[in-house]
Amino acid sequence: MKNALGIEIPEYIEGMGALEPYKGAWEKLQKGWMDETTVPPPNKAKMPHASKMCETLKDAILKADPHDGMTVSFHHHLRSGDGILVEAIKILAELGIKDITLASSSLTSAHDPILPYLKDGTITGIWSSGIRGELGKAIAEGVLPKPVVIHSHGGRVRDVHTGRIRIDLAILAASAADCEGNATGSHGPSAFGSMGYAAIDSWYAKQVVVVTDNLVDYPCVPPSIRQNYVDYVVKVDSIGDPTKIASGTTRITKSPMDLQIARLAAKAIIASDSFKQGFSFQVGAGGASLAVAKFIREAMKEKEVKGSFLLGGVTSYCVDMLNEGLFNSIFDVQSFDAAVSSSLLNNAYHIEIPAGLYANPFNCGCMTNKLDIVVLGALEVDTDFNVNVITGSEGAVRGASGGHSDTASGANLTVVVCPSFRGRIPIVKKQVHTVVTPGETIDVVVTERGICVNPRRPELRKSLEEAGLPVKDIEVLAEEVEKITGKSKDIECEDRIVGLVEYRDGTIIDVIRQVKQL
Amino acid sequence: MKNALGIEIPEYIEGMGALEPYKGAWEKLQKGWMDETTVPPPNKAKMPHASKMCETLKDAILKADPHDGMTVSFHHHLRSGDGILVEAIKILAELGIKDITLASSSLTSAHDPILPYLKDGTITGIWSSGIRGELGKAIAEGVLPKPVVIHSHGGRVRDVHTGRIRIDLAILAASAADCEGNATGSHGPSAFGSMGYAAIDSWYAKQVVVVTDNLVDYPCVPPSIRQNYVDYVVKVDSIGDPTKIASGTTRITKSPMDLQIARLAAKAIIASDSFKQGFSFQVGAGGASLAVAKFIREAMKEKEVKGSFLLGGVTSYCVDMLNEGLFNSIFDVQSFDAAVSSSLLNNAYHIEIPAGLYANPFNCGCMTNKLDIVVLGALEVDTDFNVNVITGSEGAVRGASGGHSDTASGANLTVVVCPSFRGRIPIVKKQVHTVVTPGETIDVVVTERGICVNPRRPELRKSLEEAGLPVKDIEVLAEEVEKITGKSKDIECEDRIVGLVEYRDGTIIDVIRQVKQL
Repeated sequence: MKNALGIEIPEYIEGMGALEPYKGAWEKLQKGWMDETTVPPPNKAKMPHASKMCETLKDAILKADPHDGMTVSFHHHLRSGDGILVEAIKILAELGIKDITLASSSLTSAHDPILPYLKDGTITGIWSSGIRGELGKAIAEGVLPKPVVIHSHGGRVRDVHTGRIRIDLAILAASAADCEGNATGSHGPSAFGSMGYAAIDSWYAKQVVVVTDNLVDYPCVPPSIRQNYVDYVVKVDSIGDPTKIASGTTRITKSPMDLQIARLAAKAIIASDSFKQGFSFQVGAGGASLAVAKFIREAMKEKEVKGSFLLGGVTSYCVDMLNEGLFNSIFDVQSFDAAVSSSLLNNAYHIEIPAGLYANPFNCGCMTNKLDIVVLGALEVDTDFNVNVITGSEGAVRGASGGHSDTASGANLTVVVCPSFRGRIPIVKKQVHTVVTPGETIDVVVTERGICVNPRRPELRKSLEEAGLPVKDIEVLAEEVEKITGKSKDIECEDRIVGLVEYRDGTIIDVIRQVKQL
Repeated sequence: MKNALGIEIPEYIEGMGALEPYKGAWEKLQKGWMDETTVPPPNKAKMPHASKMCETLKDAILKADPHDGMTVSFHHHLRSGDGILVEAIKILAELGIKDITLASSSLTSAHDPILPYLKDGTITGIWSSGIRGELGKAIAEGVLPKPVVIHSHGGRVRDVHTGRIRIDLAILAASAADCEGNATGSHGPSAFGSMGYAAIDSWYAKQVVVVTDNLVDYPCVPPSIRQNYVDYVVKVDSIGDPTKIASGTTRITKSPMDLQIARLAAKAIIASDSFKQGFSFQVGAGGASLAVAKFIREAMKEKEVKGSFLLGGVTSYCVDMLNEGLFNSIFDVQSFDAAVSSSLLNNAYHIEIPAGLYANPFNCGCMTNKLDIVVLGALEVDTDFNVNVITGSEGAVRGASGGHSDTASGANLTVVVCPSFRGRIPIVKKQVHTVVTPGETIDVVVTERGICVNPRRPELRKSLEEAGLPVKDIEVLAEEVEKITGKSKDIECEDRIVGLVEYRDGTIIDVIRQVKQL
């Protein structure tokens, strides 16, 4: 069957069930979707004064009913410094557990060491918002028997609510926790900030283990994770490498091209009607995105514009803007550097939010639905404004869906910033290899060669043109690029599907097919 | 069928289904009870940037699908000052809605004005932890077609989780809220402190309306209720009478008898092994209970004992002990006076907790399970240590289950303080009219005529005797009392059941039968 983008989607995947094709960004929202089956969180019971403390992570796992076919979840707030996921998978493998579905909110290069367990049948399925490094390469080459599922941050919460992901065991690293499992990431030697992605796991997993290298006196404050959801607590020597968790103050790019794109994107934003008193704003941490914040910050001061909230993915740059009074609050689902943790801990208007509140489309109003402006990156953009943030030019899985489609769907103004090509590789092109975020949710693409406005937003195009900005049709830009880079070769794929890209509403927006050895 | 206390319980109630008899305080906990059916929270959806604001409470109710047979819920944090419950029921009655089940976390004398709606078929069922005043009298006289259900605070959360209470519409008053429904009780002109009882309603109700008299700029901080659970927001002139919501600094009783009982109870606590470094403590606000805190506070200073947490029902007396460093934290499910709100707002170690975390037996560890010492009141105590806190000596419903059975079940040392008789009415007697808290969870009963220790705690009796305290058998005390008051007449009851007393695990511990006109 074909989805609304004309992409062929299988009706059924063995072991995973029936698939629903993508129908349009707001199609299911408009119907309210009150009738979809959701699953109840588990009922548990403890006797009064029972202890939750375990000697080792292995002891905790042994108590938590490890079994073949189980689903094990993790959060990725420790980012490249994570030491817990690999450790836990090793323990499960040593116990001889097979056929595990790994449901980590994302996977980074820190997780490359689990590759052997994808090859030996320990892990046979993965649900995640992002996959990179050796894992992403091996997955594209077909190492797993079942397709991986790439979801958005909001979509992951919906997947758990609806029972598409049924977590048997959640292993949640915390930089501070007490003996009952009240836990936080906002302080301690391995502080990593918000625990936003872990909340849903704690509410729905059959067994929840909190792992910390910093056991504090009862009670641990603030309780980002609360004791009534935690079965076991383990004190370990280290939850990871703090130097890779907290990378220091995030710096603005020095790349001249990124700065050029960011400056142009800021001009486009300022020329739109979304840049106004009380606007809300999200920017990513990478490349040109954060640099856009630099120019917006300057413009806010100059024009005396005060914003409502910053959302995201929070860098110390966001914290600076909060402290300068440019925004009145930050909603923090994930913190990107060291300076963020202390702000999260000490400033009541720097608010930790669970991923469901951040971006789950199926509740009474996630934060992304209230967003005015978001600035996003892209690996590829096509002439229908569809964006790929998951597969690289050689076909490997090497990115993350993250909050990309969530914020794009909610924001009044969604701006994608990217170079039009990199090396000899076109970025803006006729067709992306994999669609993660549908073009109907993208308003503007800003490149070093000019700005393309989605034809769905003629009034926005008019505003930008009136502001004297270099607006051009995206088809024209794609042709310019093709002239420079030459026609890009299609990636050679097998028929076999190795990945499903789930849109935030649970429909399938694209598939990832197996590539030849990379 | 008979329950574990030998009380006759009907197997089935028309319109309510099968009943399960009480089996023992920890019987179901010990079995883990993982297999009980629970219900999922609803799936909702809003389009981006949709407004939740309604002009009036009536407009909000009209949008929230009002219909015959619906269940409408409220919290009782506004206590005797509540102006919202009566207003909402009046609107529903004016709309002609019939057969409503009222599920308020408790009912006070402020709710007497809804009595006509119990008579005319607007309200036909009630689930609540407490009922008093004219309502309690009318219910005992049989005004409702269905028995009311009295649950504990923890039991209410379980009732919602398991679908025994299925809330169609939750109307939640807040002393501050923003346009998206982020809401709190911790500040504003009508501040009432914790919103602990309202959390479960916000998570499970099909429709959630936040009502406030203090609409603040987005975002409302702290978000005790979060926007992703709120469908509609209404600004009204007043949510209640602030003078009756916040009653000022709670005073210690001046009654010589209450002080005598309290002094004795404190001595018993100090002589037990539960009074130790790091102990946790809960006392009620009324009569002798709070006075026990006065003597414990003095002893803690004298003996240099430092406690872990205070729990409950929080008075300004608790806040004083926190500020003096006698305890390191307060967990606050319900605040009793004005001074408490500012502490809750400003002290990170004064922690607001939802009722499920407070006392739901079926999660990974409610706070009551971690409690060392609790001091509770009683309307009646029998020689099996069973306690009645719901029906008065004339048979009317005039009290509240509240956290009584929850804390009694969890605490290592449960102390009941009460006079042995009041006027010519015996308090300690052979048999209570209604059992709310089973005797197996009560350790000590302290009266002005001495201390009775539950025979299940011989080591405790020994400690108290060694400390030279006046310990006596409860049968002896009951006989002494009977000699003074004369044998109390049994309340004349009809066969008809007008109330079910649910134990915190969902089983039925007692029934309330119809009385003659009071």
